[in-house]
Amino acid sequence: MQHVHVVLVGTTHPGNIGASARAMKTMGLANLRLVAPAGFPSAEVTARAAGAGDVLAGTRVFGTLAEAIGDCGVVLASSARVRGIPWPEYTPREAVGRVLDAARAGTEVALVFGREQSGLSNEELSLCHGMIRIPANPDFSSLNLASAVQVIAYELNVAAAAGGAKEKTEEEDSRRVNAAELEQFYAHLEACMTDIGFMRPEQPRRLLLRLRRLFNRAALDENEYNILRGIRAAAQAAARKTRIS
Amino acid sequence: MQHVHVVLVGTTHPGNIGASARAMKTMGLANLRLVAPAGFPSAEVTARAAGAGDVLAGTRVFGTLAEAIGDCGVVLASSARVRGIPWPEYTPREAVGRVLDAARAGTEVALVFGREQSGLSNEELSLCHGMIRIPANPDFSSLNLASAVQVIAYELNVAAAAGGAKEKTEEEDSRRVNAAELEQFYAHLEACMTDIGFMRPEQPRRLLLRLRRLFNRAALDENEYNILRGIRAAAQAAARKTRIS
Repeated sequence: MQHVHVVLVGTTHPGNIGASARAMKTMGLANLRLVAPAGFPSAEVTARAAGAGDVLAGTRVFGTLAEAIGDCGVVLASSARVRGIPWPEYTPREAVGRVLDAARAGTEVALVFGREQSGLSNEELSLCHGMIRIPANPDFSSLNLASAVQVIAYELNVAAAAGGAKEKTEEEDSRRVNAAELEQFYAHLEACMTDIGFMRPEQPRRLLLRLRRLFNRAALDENEYNILRGIRAAAQAAARKTRIS
Repeated sequence: MQHVHVVLVGTTHPGNIGASARAMKTMGLANLRLVAPAGFPSAEVTARAAGAGDVLAGTRVFGTLAEAIGDCGVVLASSARVRGIPWPEYTPREAVGRVLDAARAGTEVALVFGREQSGLSNEELSLCHGMIRIPANPDFSSLNLASAVQVIAYELNVAAAAGGAKEKTEEEDSRRVNAAELEQFYAHLEACMTDIGFMRPEQPRRLLLRLRRLFNRAALDENEYNILRGIRAAAQAAARKTRIS
């Protein structure tokens, strides 16, 4: 559990921060990160945290989601909304298996929760590797923020308690790359695609989103990451020679 | 779900009543009963209920727990505390099976939640048929009242949905590519890597195996496949221009 981080983005009601800290602690989670929170710290946060003051004391505050998840190799966002571009979507019960597998392998995992009213921006969503959707009443699916934290933390706690040795489905020969490394790769890939003449300027965004979705889902390890970087660099070098000659 | 009733006993914080109503509605529960509540109805209750005003409008208030559960054939109490007298104790996941079986048979079922600070009295407990204990951090097991309602209602909703059609876990916007297409991609990729000067002739097998492992795992859909083919073709074209010139 020490590798699992709850990340609240742009929370507007301070009470929800405190209630989320309490929900976390009841399920054995201690690591809270806040992105541009309103009213933190405050008396309201502390009051709603009840006995979870230690979680608040260890809470780290960041300016952007990218900064908050920089060291995380698995980033899953809780969302009730269906998006245009389909990210991999998990129920809480499906998601916690992935979370625990990664955390047990020493990978930092982020569980991201958006703003109470407006959720996450598309740019923020593009930093995430998948979505956790809590099954809910289709006519009223809007869980309170701390309630969503509670449900997912609860599933995590149930799975962790049940979890003896979960079988390894895949040989792990190398550590997972983290979000900051992936961002660097995407930036270089974009430059490369322009250089080799593949990127069509009229719709780069959707193309990049699809590539992000693919490689986020694939959960690259360090070897694979280095191979892809090598291919990208070689292609770019080949294209540049063309232009020079 | 219309045979399931949430019963809050002696709730002292009106906000928790509203938050519980919201939690219920998100999971498709509509029947709320209150025993000797403080501050109901009130503006605070309504505010915290958010869009669950209809649940509040249908809420019934009773003087005692005995009256509130008079018509119920199954009565389960949520409690974090271990009691001197050992009632049958269930996890939420175990309990919802019993609840749904009874409700489907037309039996009225009560899910009882005690006071925030002091829970249920022994007399009240003696009216219940069993306990639901939410697995929690042994050092801090005190869930917020509405959070406890949320967790149990969530389990109920998951179990109810599992009874019907299995939910789709991921939107599929494009068909998966088949093995033959993948083989073609790998062959073209190998040629491309040679052309751009990335493939080291002394160990091509391991490199290709790693790429196979990556893209097989990623389970490409047709759109992604076409993007990758396009990048590969553009890189190759750029490299060939270099050699010709």
